[in-house]
Amino acid sequence: MAVVLPTRTRFLLDEERIPRAWYNIAADLPTPPPPPLHPGTGQPIGPGDLAPLFPMELIKQVVATDREIEIPDPVRDAYKLYRPSPLHRARNLEKALDTPAHIYYKYEGGSPSGSHKPNTALAQAFYMKDEGVERAATETGAGQWGSALAFAGAHFGLDVKVYMVRASYDQKPYRRILMETYGASVSASPSLETEFGRGVLRDNPDHTGSLGLAISEAIEDVMTHPGSKYSLGSVFDFVLLHQTVIGQESIEQMELAGEEPDVIIGCAGGGSNFAGLTFPWLGRTFRGGKSYRVIAAEPEAAPSLTRGVYAYDFGDTAKTTPLVKMHTLGADFIPEPIHAGGLRYHGMAPLVSHLKEIGAIEARSVHQLACFAAGVQFARTEGILPAPEPTHALKVAIDEALDARAAGEERVILFNLCGHGHFDLSAYEQYLAGTLEDYEYPDEKVAAALAALPGVG
Amino acid sequence: MAVVLPTRTRFLLDEERIPRAWYNIAADLPTPPPPPLHPGTGQPIGPGDLAPLFPMELIKQVVATDREIEIPDPVRDAYKLYRPSPLHRARNLEKALDTPAHIYYKYEGGSPSGSHKPNTALAQAFYMKDEGVERAATETGAGQWGSALAFAGAHFGLDVKVYMVRASYDQKPYRRILMETYGASVSASPSLETEFGRGVLRDNPDHTGSLGLAISEAIEDVMTHPGSKYSLGSVFDFVLLHQTVIGQESIEQMELAGEEPDVIIGCAGGGSNFAGLTFPWLGRTFRGGKSYRVIAAEPEAAPSLTRGVYAYDFGDTAKTTPLVKMHTLGADFIPEPIHAGGLRYHGMAPLVSHLKEIGAIEARSVHQLACFAAGVQFARTEGILPAPEPTHALKVAIDEALDARAAGEERVILFNLCGHGHFDLSAYEQYLAGTLEDYEYPDEKVAAALAALPGVG
Repeated sequence: MAVVLPTRTRFLLDEERIPRAWYNIAADLPTPPPPPLHPGTGQPIGPGDLAPLFPMELIKQVVATDREIEIPDPVRDAYKLYRPSPLHRARNLEKALDTPAHIYYKYEGGSPSGSHKPNTALAQAFYMKDEGVERAATETGAGQWGSALAFAGAHFGLDVKVYMVRASYDQKPYRRILMETYGASVSASPSLETEFGRGVLRDNPDHTGSLGLAISEAIEDVMTHPGSKYSLGSVFDFVLLHQTVIGQESIEQMELAGEEPDVIIGCAGGGSNFAGLTFPWLGRTFRGGKSYRVIAAEPEAAPSLTRGVYAYDFGDTAKTTPLVKMHTLGADFIPEPIHAGGLRYHGMAPLVSHLKEIGAIEARSVHQLACFAAGVQFARTEGILPAPEPTHALKVAIDEALDARAAGEERVILFNLCGHGHFDLSAYEQYLAGTLEDYEYPDEKVAAALAALPGVG
Repeated sequence: MAVVLPTRTRFLLDEERIPRAWYNIAADLPTPPPPPLHPGTGQPIGPGDLAPLFPMELIKQVVATDREIEIPDPVRDAYKLYRPSPLHRARNLEKALDTPAHIYYKYEGGSPSGSHKPNTALAQAFYMKDEGVERAATETGAGQWGSALAFAGAHFGLDVKVYMVRASYDQKPYRRILMETYGASVSASPSLETEFGRGVLRDNPDHTGSLGLAISEAIEDVMTHPGSKYSLGSVFDFVLLHQTVIGQESIEQMELAGEEPDVIIGCAGGGSNFAGLTFPWLGRTFRGGKSYRVIAAEPEAAPSLTRGVYAYDFGDTAKTTPLVKMHTLGADFIPEPIHAGGLRYHGMAPLVSHLKEIGAIEARSVHQLACFAAGVQFARTEGILPAPEPTHALKVAIDEALDARAAGEERVILFNLCGHGHFDLSAYEQYLAGTLEDYEYPDEKVAAALAALPGVG
C-alpha cells in the first residue's frame, strides 16, 4: 500500500557552498548578442544613458566580460537566510507517471518571499544602498517581485515604492499586504502619482494595468524623485546574472545525486528564473562540455519565444526604455489575464532571445488549463503547491517524462520550481471548480502590436 | 550601511540525519501523568475504548514506555520531502534588539503545508492506511492541521474529511482551497452532516463554530461512517510524540552551532509544537543533564496553563472524549476570535500540563497586539513572515533577549517558528492599519465554564 521511497530525495548544501561569484554567460557565448540601442539616436547606449536609473556597479555588470562576478559579502550573507536552496528528486511524481525518467527540481519557494526573486532583489538593494541611494522604485505584476524587493529593502534599510498592476492589486491583496508588512509603499498602477499614469486614467478610469505600463510609471517616478533609482525583477542582463546562483548550486547538487541532466527546463516570462537555472549549465556546454536540451516553457497567451519576432523593441508601454533586440509580441501587446502574472510580458530577455537565435535553447508554449492540471498533480504527489508560473516548467517536465516512458528511456530531467502557490489559491479554486479559462494564441492582437514595432536596427 | 553578518546563519542536516525513532518522554518522566478516564465509569480507559477511533499502532504508542519508538520507513521517507528542517540563528534580529543574547529558531514553515503539522499527519495517515482504514475525519481551526492531513492523505492514498471551524472557513478561503487541492473534502462546522452540528444550528443558525465543537462533529462522523477513523492535530500523547523529530534535530543542530540553549520556547495551544521542540531537551535533563528554562507561550485570550485549573475535563464541546487531566479553562469556554486559531483551545495537552505541575516547565501568556508587533519586526529583520501562533513564542524570545541585554548576559535562546504566515495576511493588514483588537483575560466566561467541570478524579 504505502509508497516506499528509495533513498535519497533531497540534496542539500551547507551555507559554505553558496556560490562566491555570479556566473556571467557573456564570457562563454559563441557570439555576442546585439547591443541595446538609444531610441533617439539608434546608437548603442553607453553607461551614461543608464546612470540615471541604475547604480554604477550594476551598469558595470552589464558590460562585464569576466566569467565570474564576485558576490559582495553582505549579499552573500543575506543569501544565507534561505540559500542554498534544496534540490529534490520527484520520486512520487515519477511513480505516478510510471516513467523511467528521473525528475529533479530545484526549489526556490523556500525564500522569505516565496520565489527566486530575492536572489537579485538583495543584490540590487545592496548596490543602491552602497552607492548612497535612499529609495528604490519598481513595478510588480502578480507581486512576487515586489515582495522580494520589499524584503530586500527591509534588509538593507532602503525605502521601496512599488507600482503594482491594478488587476493584481485588486485580486491579490495578500501580496500587497506582504509588501507593506516589509515596510514598502504600494500603489495600484495606473496611478495618479505619475504623469503617464494620470494620462492613462484620463482616457480610461477603469484601466486594469499591465506590466509594461507599470514599468513606465516606475521609471517616471525615478526620474522625478532625486535620490531614487529604478529596480527591476527580470529581463535585464544583470538580473539574469544574479539568478545564476540557482544553476551553480544545481550543478553541485546533481553531482551529489550522481547524475547529469539530459533536459533542463525553466518557465520564461522575462527570462530570469530560466536563465538562473540554465546559464551555468549552458556555459559548460559552450566551454566544450556535454550538450543539454534546454527548454524555455512559456504561456500560450504570451508566447514571445515561440511566436514572436526577433526585433528591436521597447521594454515598456510608454516606450521610455532603451531598444533591446529580443523576441517580442510588440510593446503595445497586453497579454490576457492569465494567472501566471510573472509570465504576462510581451518580450523576452535579450540574452535568452539570443540563445534561442543561435540554437542553444528550445522553447515550448503551454496552455493555462494544462499547467494547472500539472500543478494539482504535483501538489498531490510531491506535496508542494507550485505557483502558476513554474507549472509551465512542470508541465513540460511531465511531458518529457511521459515521452521518456514512451521511448523506454531513463531520461534525466531537471526543472526550476521557482515559487510556491500559497498566494494563488483563488486560481486553483477556479481550476478545481472547472471555471478557469483557457487562452488561445491571440493572432490579431499580436499582429497589431507587431505593426507598431520601431523598425530600428 | 549594509549589515554584515558573521558566518554562520543556517544549520542544515542531510536527510540521513532525520531521526529514526520518535522520542517518548514517558520513559524519562520522574512521575507518570494521571491516566485518562472513561467519562461513564470514572475508571482509566483501556485500548478497547480507543479502538473505534484510532489505529491500533497509535493506541500502543500512547501506553508505550520505550524511550524510542521506531519511525516506519514510509513515514521517514515522506519526511524527506521537507525534513530535516533548518535551524537558523537570528543574527539580524539580535542586531536590531542590540542584545548579547544568541537567538536560534527551528523553522518548520518549509513543509508543504507550511507548518509542523505534517510530522504527525503523515504518521497518522500511514498507520490508518496500513491497518486498512480508507478514510480519516478530523477538525481544523485556522486550517494548518487540516492542510497537513489533506497533504498526508494525498501522499498515502487516504480519503480525508475536514470539519473546519466556520469562522475560519469564511475568513481563510485559501486554507480551504489548499485542502481541496490536495483532494480533501471540507465542511464548515457546525455542519448539517452530523446530529450534533444540526442541533447546534437549530439553536443558532449563525453559529461561527469552535475547535471543541468541530472535534465533536469529527468524532460523530467517525462513529457513523464504517471504515473511517479519527485523526487529530494536537493534545493527544501520540501527536506530541510524532513532533519530537523537531527537538531531536534541534539538538544535533545546536551541536553544529557549538552552543547549548539556556532558554527553550514554544507556543502552546494544544501543546504539540511546544512538546515537539522541548521534550527531547527535557529528556536530557531528566536523565541527569543540564537544566533548561523551558517556556510555553500562550495567548492571553486562552491562557490554560497560566490561568486555568488542573483538573479532569473533556477535550470537546459535546463532551464525548475521554476525561483527561489537564490545565483547562473549561470545555464550555469558547475563546475570543484571536488570529492565532491554532491556540484557541480551552485545554492543554495532558503531558504538557503534567510537566507544568511538576515544575519542569514555565508558562507565560502574551497579548495579540504585542505578538503581531513581534511578527512584523521579525519579518523586517529575518525575512520570514511568521504565522500568528509562533509569534507568541517569538514575543517571549524577544523579551528574553531584551532581558539578557538588561542583565548583560550572553543568553542562548532557542524557539520554534512552527509555521509561516502567508495565509494570515489579513490579520497583519489589520495590525498595520491599527484596527487589530486586543483581548484581555475573560474572567467571567472562564469562571462560568469552570463551574461546569465534571468534578471527576
